[in-house]
Amino acid sequence: MANPGPGNSITLRIDAPSNFSVTSELAVAAADAGAAVTALDVVESHPSTIVVDLTCNTAGEEHVERVRAAIDALEGVTVRLVSDRTFLMHLGGKLEVVPRVPLRNRDDLSRAYTPGVARVCLAIAEDKSKARQLTVKRNTIAVVTDGTAVLGLGDIGPEAALPVMEGKAALFKQFANVDAWPVCLDTKDTEEIISIVKAIAPVYGGVNLEDIAAPRCFEIEARLREELDIPVFHDDQHGTAIVTLAALGNALKVVGKRIEDVRIVVSGVGAAGNAIVQLLLAEGARDIVACGRDGAIHSDAEYVDAHRTELAATTNPRGFQGTLKEALVDADVFIGVSAPNILVEDDIAAMADDAIVFAMANPVPEVDPIVASRHAAVVATGRSDFPNQINNVLAFPGVFRGLLDAGVSDITAPMLVAAAEAIASRVGDDELNASFIIPSVFDPLVAGAVAEAIVRVASSSSVASSKE
Amino acid sequence: MANPGPGNSITLRIDAPSNFSVTSELAVAAADAGAAVTALDVVESHPSTIVVDLTCNTAGEEHVERVRAAIDALEGVTVRLVSDRTFLMHLGGKLEVVPRVPLRNRDDLSRAYTPGVARVCLAIAEDKSKARQLTVKRNTIAVVTDGTAVLGLGDIGPEAALPVMEGKAALFKQFANVDAWPVCLDTKDTEEIISIVKAIAPVYGGVNLEDIAAPRCFEIEARLREELDIPVFHDDQHGTAIVTLAALGNALKVVGKRIEDVRIVVSGVGAAGNAIVQLLLAEGARDIVACGRDGAIHSDAEYVDAHRTELAATTNPRGFQGTLKEALVDADVFIGVSAPNILVEDDIAAMADDAIVFAMANPVPEVDPIVASRHAAVVATGRSDFPNQINNVLAFPGVFRGLLDAGVSDITAPMLVAAAEAIASRVGDDELNASFIIPSVFDPLVAGAVAEAIVRVASSSSVASSKE
Repeated sequence: MANPGPGNSITLRIDAPSNFSVTSELAVAAADAGAAVTALDVVESHPSTIVVDLTCNTAGEEHVERVRAAIDALEGVTVRLVSDRTFLMHLGGKLEVVPRVPLRNRDDLSRAYTPGVARVCLAIAEDKSKARQLTVKRNTIAVVTDGTAVLGLGDIGPEAALPVMEGKAALFKQFANVDAWPVCLDTKDTEEIISIVKAIAPVYGGVNLEDIAAPRCFEIEARLREELDIPVFHDDQHGTAIVTLAALGNALKVVGKRIEDVRIVVSGVGAAGNAIVQLLLAEGARDIVACGRDGAIHSDAEYVDAHRTELAATTNPRGFQGTLKEALVDADVFIGVSAPNILVEDDIAAMADDAIVFAMANPVPEVDPIVASRHAAVVATGRSDFPNQINNVLAFPGVFRGLLDAGVSDITAPMLVAAAEAIASRVGDDELNASFIIPSVFDPLVAGAVAEAIVRVASSSSVASSKE
Repeated sequence: MANPGPGNSITLRIDAPSNFSVTSELAVAAADAGAAVTALDVVESHPSTIVVDLTCNTAGEEHVERVRAAIDALEGVTVRLVSDRTFLMHLGGKLEVVPRVPLRNRDDLSRAYTPGVARVCLAIAEDKSKARQLTVKRNTIAVVTDGTAVLGLGDIGPEAALPVMEGKAALFKQFANVDAWPVCLDTKDTEEIISIVKAIAPVYGGVNLEDIAAPRCFEIEARLREELDIPVFHDDQHGTAIVTLAALGNALKVVGKRIEDVRIVVSGVGAAGNAIVQLLLAEGARDIVACGRDGAIHSDAEYVDAHRTELAATTNPRGFQGTLKEALVDADVFIGVSAPNILVEDDIAAMADDAIVFAMANPVPEVDPIVASRHAAVVATGRSDFPNQINNVLAFPGVFRGLLDAGVSDITAPMLVAAAEAIASRVGDDELNASFIIPSVFDPLVAGAVAEAIVRVASSSSVASSKE
């Protein structure tokens, strides 16, 4: 059974007899059934009965039923209602659109709307680039998905993807004051997605592509980067690559190795794996073996898909051929963005001394991190319940804050590298150790550091030329 | 010269000698140049000089230059900077996207985002209609334009239309707590606009079409109404028709006539004119003559365009042929949604006794309202500086509040009529007179009354069946 967690937090509304020990009996019954009680409130009291709200973390739906049954089984106790706190939080959506200007009276209305607004419209009609100053384009990005690769859930459709995109937009605002709006498209056609994003672009200062299945996502990203004059970021690629590089830089410091010298094995050649490899190459890595489901990608093979062909040409200089497990023998670094439980203890034991293992498949990693830590010097995952959580939220808010502030029209590899270095630098030399290679997602200074790094790179190159 | 107004409000930052009379001299100079001074602040004081911010309403760009020159001409006085308060208000855009849920710690994150959000996604994947409860679709509409018929400015493009759409969205939130998001499309292709709106629809509970040129707007609206399962409202048509009917109902009360008995002339057969005619017919009007640029539409003529053909079949029962001016002879009601200054005093004088004149061309009406009032019993315009402002903001916020609350999938004529009656009913019998036939746009109870009327009609018919 999974551990009880706040993602499965429930509140039970309970009718119980009013006696001295009843609340502790309720708490004990919930705990005995495996729930982690986080709150207990008496919400009504009557002469012989009370109404109690008991809130607890559970491990999921079946567990909820067991907790409910355990409490219901108590003498004189009835569970009236079970509310799911996650669903309550999502009720009515997680975003709202609010005016930044007052509209209290006729004067306000005359400036914000007609007739005053006409002069603002005319100024933009004369010079379109003024939209970057005088409209929401200044601070707003689109979070675009087709709902085909959402979390680990796959192709669940645009409506079902919306709660994730809303959450993402909330994080953009919370961490970097970027206004982000969900665009969930009811089409899976590559050309149609490209033309829609181009058509809606006037309102936005940037585009964050999200949870679009590979290989379609590569074509969409490449074409939009070419055809739009605002930056296009694919979080599953670039966001993941940035945080991975940040964590790897610090992990290498911990074990005293250099990126130029290490053997790196990347498992997974989808959106994330490809982008990670590109960024590692940009940072100076020389010996990368990328493995798909059929083992190592190498230049003696023929690949249909353009991205495998490219990987074959740019990685695997030793021409290694074989399985993922074989590739891991004597490797210094394992980076997994693939599938759950594909490695066992012996695979990690076969790696070089002071190995680094990033098992980022979510929610179940490529290898049990506890098991991996018996042999590897540094272990990281995508999960919050182990040390070293490699989470994109460290990257994307600050990246777009920087892109918008610099008025950038295109994202470059040096920007991604600078963003990774900014994240890594938030772990001080006195803090750095095998269990702390990456800052907390709640470190309030990460986004600012990332934004500053992006602005610095942008202003030292010509990409900021579109800025008004 | 136009009158000074808040849409052209400026602040002059002025260096002046520090002496007892200087501030009053500045104010007098501005007033002598025709500006209406609204504020004067000394923002810095030095031994021999002061810095003053003088804020005033002007009549436009040339007038600003004259005011500036008049102040600059004062002994020892220099205008350092002129800032346009309208532009200042629009700087950085007029909307922001904010989280409705807290994201303070890991627990919050686990529910609002991963891993908890996955359960919400799965619930919607199983039953798409749950998106109406668990996402922003519950309370959010798209304000869609292609930027081709913006205010009186015409085809100014999607970027230049954005300040208007932002203002509209701000009004939706302010007056009816509806979250509205601007969708400014960089295409004028009817089919493409239709397919884009369909593709982005998963996020929205309704669509407000805005400032799309006729006749394209008719096709877009009709097709989207047919093909989408959320309500589609074209404000230039339905919004205008609702407020016009509301005003007409009360105006007829003032003059003691019945809609079934009056002769009505409508000038303008674009988006607004067509919708007004349809709604007047639904309300029981029998004698309507609709005039385009070539005069009255009548059934003896052949029309290429489907809407004129339809008008010819449904209006003008007396088979009147002739110009707008000729049609006005003995007419009881003139409704203009056409062009500035097309009528003169004699035209209004030729109307029936107790005539009603709605001259709604903006910003310059079909006839000078002061002149019209010499002969007509009731005169209304679209402007805020005359009595009886017929403004769509009385209709659209409440309409969508009602549509969202009722979970309606389609808008019907009875809903539009009910909305008009709700607006009209906000003018009490004791308040009603020829100068007060329509409530103020700042009447805080209008939107709620309109929403309630929509919900009432929806729940008495089957259109609310899509509600979850």
